[in-house]
Amino acid sequence: MITVSVVGASGYSGIELLKILVKHPGVKIDKLFANSSAGKRLSDVAPSFGKTLDIMLETYSIDKISKSNLIFIALPSGEAMNLVPDMISSDKRVIDLGGDFRLQDTSLYERYYKRAHSANAVLKQAVYGLPEWNLSQIKSAPLIANPGCYPTSAILPLAPLLKEGIIEAKGIAVSSLSGVSGAGRSSSVEMSFAEVNESVRAYKVGTHQHIPEIRTILETISGAPLSLTFVPHLLPITRGIYTSIYATLKKPVNEETIFNVYEKYYAKAPFVRYSTISIPEIKNVAHTNFADIGFRINQEDGQLIVFSTIDNLIKGAAGQAVQNMNIMFGYKETEGLI
Amino acid sequence: MITVSVVGASGYSGIELLKILVKHPGVKIDKLFANSSAGKRLSDVAPSFGKTLDIMLETYSIDKISKSNLIFIALPSGEAMNLVPDMISSDKRVIDLGGDFRLQDTSLYERYYKRAHSANAVLKQAVYGLPEWNLSQIKSAPLIANPGCYPTSAILPLAPLLKEGIIEAKGIAVSSLSGVSGAGRSSSVEMSFAEVNESVRAYKVGTHQHIPEIRTILETISGAPLSLTFVPHLLPITRGIYTSIYATLKKPVNEETIFNVYEKYYAKAPFVRYSTISIPEIKNVAHTNFADIGFRINQEDGQLIVFSTIDNLIKGAAGQAVQNMNIMFGYKETEGLI
Amino acid sequence: MITVSVVGASGYSGIELLKILVKHPGVKIDKLFANSSAGKRLSDVAPSFGKTLDIMLETYSIDKISKSNLIFIALPSGEAMNLVPDMISSDKRVIDLGGDFRLQDTSLYERYYKRAHSANAVLKQAVYGLPEWNLSQIKSAPLIANPGCYPTSAILPLAPLLKEGIIEAKGIAVSSLSGVSGAGRSSSVEMSFAEVNESVRAYKVGTHQHIPEIRTILETISGAPLSLTFVPHLLPITRGIYTSIYATLKKPVNEETIFNVYEKYYAKAPFVRYSTISIPEIKNVAHTNFADIGFRINQEDGQLIVFSTIDNLIKGAAGQAVQNMNIMFGYKETEGLI
Amino acid sequence: MITVSVVGASGYSGIELLKILVKHPGVKIDKLFANSSAGKRLSDVAPSFGKTLDIMLETYSIDKISKSNLIFIALPSGEAMNLVPDMISSDKRVIDLGGDFRLQDTSLYERYYKRAHSANAVLKQAVYGLPEWNLSQIKSAPLIANPGCYPTSAILPLAPLLKEGIIEAKGIAVSSLSGVSGAGRSSSVEMSFAEVNESVRAYKVGTHQHIPEIRTILETISGAPLSLTFVPHLLPITRGIYTSIYATLKKPVNEETIFNVYEKYYAKAPFVRYSTISIPEIKNVAHTNFADIGFRINQEDGQLIVFSTIDNLIKGAAGQAVQNMNIMFGYKETEGLI
Repeated sequence: MITVSVVGASGYSGIELLKILVKHPGVKIDKLFANSSAGKRLSDVAPSFGKTLDIMLETYSIDKISKSNLIFIALPSGEAMNLVPDMISSDKRVIDLGGDFRLQDTSLYERYYKRAHSANAVLKQAVYGLPEWNLSQIKSAPLIANPGCYPTSAILPLAPLLKEGIIEAKGIAVSSLSGVSGAGRSSSVEMSFAEVNESVRAYKVGTHQHIPEIRTILETISGAPLSLTFVPHLLPITRGIYTSIYATLKKPVNEETIFNVYEKYYAKAPFVRYSTISIPEIKNVAHTNFADIGFRINQEDGQLIVFSTIDNLIKGAAGQAVQNMNIMFGYKETEGLI
Repeated sequence: MITVSVVGASGYSGIELLKILVKHPGVKIDKLFANSSAGKRLSDVAPSFGKTLDIMLETYSIDKISKSNLIFIALPSGEAMNLVPDMISSDKRVIDLGGDFRLQDTSLYERYYKRAHSANAVLKQAVYGLPEWNLSQIKSAPLIANPGCYPTSAILPLAPLLKEGIIEAKGIAVSSLSGVSGAGRSSSVEMSFAEVNESVRAYKVGTHQHIPEIRTILETISGAPLSLTFVPHLLPITRGIYTSIYATLKKPVNEETIFNVYEKYYAKAPFVRYSTISIPEIKNVAHTNFADIGFRINQEDGQLIVFSTIDNLIKGAAGQAVQNMNIMFGYKETEGLI
Repeated sequence: MITVSVVGASGYSGIELLKILVKHPGVKIDKLFANSSAGKRLSDVAPSFGKTLDIMLETYSIDKISKSNLIFIALPSGEAMNLVPDMISSDKRVIDLGGDFRLQDTSLYERYYKRAHSANAVLKQAVYGLPEWNLSQIKSAPLIANPGCYPTSAILPLAPLLKEGIIEAKGIAVSSLSGVSGAGRSSSVEMSFAEVNESVRAYKVGTHQHIPEIRTILETISGAPLSLTFVPHLLPITRGIYTSIYATLKKPVNEETIFNVYEKYYAKAPFVRYSTISIPEIKNVAHTNFADIGFRINQEDGQLIVFSTIDNLIKGAAGQAVQNMNIMFGYKETEGLI
Repeated sequence: MITVSVVGASGYSGIELLKILVKHPGVKIDKLFANSSAGKRLSDVAPSFGKTLDIMLETYSIDKISKSNLIFIALPSGEAMNLVPDMISSDKRVIDLGGDFRLQDTSLYERYYKRAHSANAVLKQAVYGLPEWNLSQIKSAPLIANPGCYPTSAILPLAPLLKEGIIEAKGIAVSSLSGVSGAGRSSSVEMSFAEVNESVRAYKVGTHQHIPEIRTILETISGAPLSLTFVPHLLPITRGIYTSIYATLKKPVNEETIFNVYEKYYAKAPFVRYSTISIPEIKNVAHTNFADIGFRINQEDGQLIVFSTIDNLIKGAAGQAVQNMNIMFGYKETEGLI
């Protein structure tokens, strides 16, 4: 039994995390921290926790987490880097669901996150928490940078294809569709129901902070420079990401070859599913920690089209964080998640 | 050809009004006024007007409307009463889509709108702009109080039944469901997509400002005091109101009797449809100025259930305003609306 | 550890049931039966079970369930009554999620379900599986009639009020809104996305098969005849029921009185939540086994308005079935459900 | 004033067409034909036409259209080619909203529509009704092949770029998202609300019948062979298409260059809007005949990303048909459409 605390418990990712942790047989929830909601009961902020998790939200301070083995941070990017150094100094293990520790190159962080990085020393200890590729490092990591939702949906299908040299590393188009919960709790007109419903829009084209994350992680895995266009679109659904990838085949292949590439890397991955037949649908992964992968070959034009789906709040955030926790603390990788 | 201006052109009702006016063969659009959007082009605020209505939004002042015959006001309640007295003094005719001139009893206004009424003299000249009941007064009115969306959906089905003594005036339950556009453009968390989608909630139970409007207008029409419970619910759709009314029959009736009551009052009403067979559906009135009415009798328990649907932005706001305009200026009542 | 089989595993209720059973630590899943999908893998019919529950769907026959302690039936009404007598004869315990064993009065069954009842002997052994009211009978029941979704949402808030004589038993209006999954998997035009989306419609007014269920169960609990109008409405959401109830107070009460009535009956009910402050919202119960209750008093007119929400697939079907199973087999009532 | 009849009046495209024609000042509606709905009133099939268009649906025969100048056909593909030869022989002008006359190469028709073409002689007289590119031919055409919805959304943004040699004709990825009304009225489980809602899926990858239409029309316009991957995705919205195009720039360009290319071809097109700043959103074109185009340049990787939106039922079907009608009969191109 481990004891965990959550900083940023009242956002969408924090709440999703608590829904999983509450059912996890190996976890005791210690402290929940929030900013504007501090001083309220969790069930006042998120009524779905009524009769389930009766606990106060507090203002964070380092001395309050002395009993915790693990701290989850589910804050907006830019806030975690102010807290993590002290946590690490206090020998806490940390899983950060935000973006502060995903880019080892701080110049990329500054360019895309529009602020300087203030925790370079700790950044070097961070492990990118994509269990399907970094399993052994995650086990002993003091600090996990939990992957972004779009990167999870793009890296899982692309990494094996690039590593095996199936597709060209140039001119890859990653067209992603996301539900609105990915943007967090919002009070903007742009995210109001009347503006989002029955519509679609591309956004942050060329400037989204997940672009360098997708690129650098894939370059690390494949060992080669990458040229990639990533376009996120906002959909009128609450949760789920649908990623369609357009790539050029290096040489003609058949579907079995592609399937075998995925089999090589994901046969033992409990949360990655792939098929030569089915095209993924969001509804099959919603409210689960699964990533589904499908594909089609355009033989005439030498193009490969790959599809992937995840639940942005689970495999794209809270579920992957718990998967990392399970690995870090020796639980079964699927505990609390299936 | 008449010349009209719109104050509050950039809200949902204002935009819907302009979409109708732009196609109306008898209308020349003069000035558009907005608050925070003043100085921008309409098509920058509402891109759907690109290549359709190329006009600047301005800050309102009385001297700018000298060429207009008619002023539409589509502002939040509380703002129109500051502007209308000067407009009336300048011999402009006015249609106010807000709530400032719907309640002749200013004590009710103060109780439900939480502010004092500052334009009592002009209030007395206001005609409640429900054409199906006030046609002749609308023709010559200097000032029209355009009905609220919920009141339109409740008064149209109830007024004939009460006037003919079909149902008890006590214990009527009006259960209304509305799309979110009724709340106007919003930047609150409560109206964000992620909070509204896949959910339903009742709100402002017992305190909604449309309660006294429904009650007093029905009392005026039927000539008798009324006891009524009105509950609005917020639905995850953009537009449309569905009102289900539960009432006690004074004596047993059959469906033909009910139909004939509606026929008596609405046979010549171009925008009211009713049927003994069909139950209304929002999709049949969405994007139209129609109100559909249906009903069922629970003979065993002596109850009548009546259903009505409107598009809250059209028959519940902008369309009804244009219907009033047509009547005021001698156009065919359906001009620009069918 | 008990061994269970599911007849009707590929419908929406069956799938939801399996999602819960798969995570339940005290359950071993034995056989899954389906009609048209027999011979396929579960994960081909419901891809969300990939890497989770790898099992074939079979055609049902009584000899295949010899190892099972408990059989769940999630078939359309009318089918279970052909199967249950043999199951009971074979000493199996049964939970039927359909409507065949909910009405002890077979004339009501014939009137509302439009067919004769063919299993009268077994019907007498059936216990109505609403744990908040029939806990002790459920423990030893051979056959559970799992309550309908609308009845669950109407009986839970109404029963305490009627039993304590707070409201009149005459003229109660029950206005319910449901997501489409309540209708089961459908291939009708009426349930197609384009017809349902952005619309609302009342349906089966006065003829819905849940009317006698609500009425007779409430009459049994309160011991007095009831007059009630129930109107279901179809909403463009996938899951959830919102029930708004309009009733007449016998005498003036305050909110504390109402709260105390609920406290008296539900203080120890793990899945019923109630509040004097909050109005329920579907999103707070979606994907949970909770029923949330809220209310407002219209003192002026002596009316009480009560609101309740459930997830129709969980507390209204599969979750309540598991809650019943937990009670029948001595597990903690919340096991697998929180 | 022209007289028109509609064959296939009760489908989604037919109904949308009638909504436009009813308001068009230059059109008299003669006969409406339907298959299974023949013998019913239009307003029974589509209640939104109550008090608007009171007319019977009939079974089609050639002798019934003797008074009509123009016949619109809104039937499933494969049916129009059986009717059109007789119509043309009878000197009727025809606009076919289906796919039967869009591909001049009948071997492509057979491959993608899975049936032989039975009206080759008439096919040669058909003009592809995309007014922005075929204006002069449309004026005198006896038969218009009204473009498909996806092709309209892909050809409008791509044609100028290919004709001017801005982008490579190889490796273009066209990723389209569509509302469900594009599939027509459906009674399949796959298109039911519960299956479509809160999900997304790609479909008909590599086999969609619009693939050869996009390719051949673009090749005709640009005069060069094209390699293109088109992937349609189904979204949980009723109407609208969002098309995101990923292409390789032939040489570096700036945004002004792209804008000028569009200006060159569409400055006088009343229904095409484009911008260097705005990214299109479906809500800006929903219920209109507009096509909106936006773009971003990925200078680093030499990629151009172009976005377009249309309402699939209007610019993608009924509105474009009326636009063609306006051109054929000398009306203002925007008549009845703005």
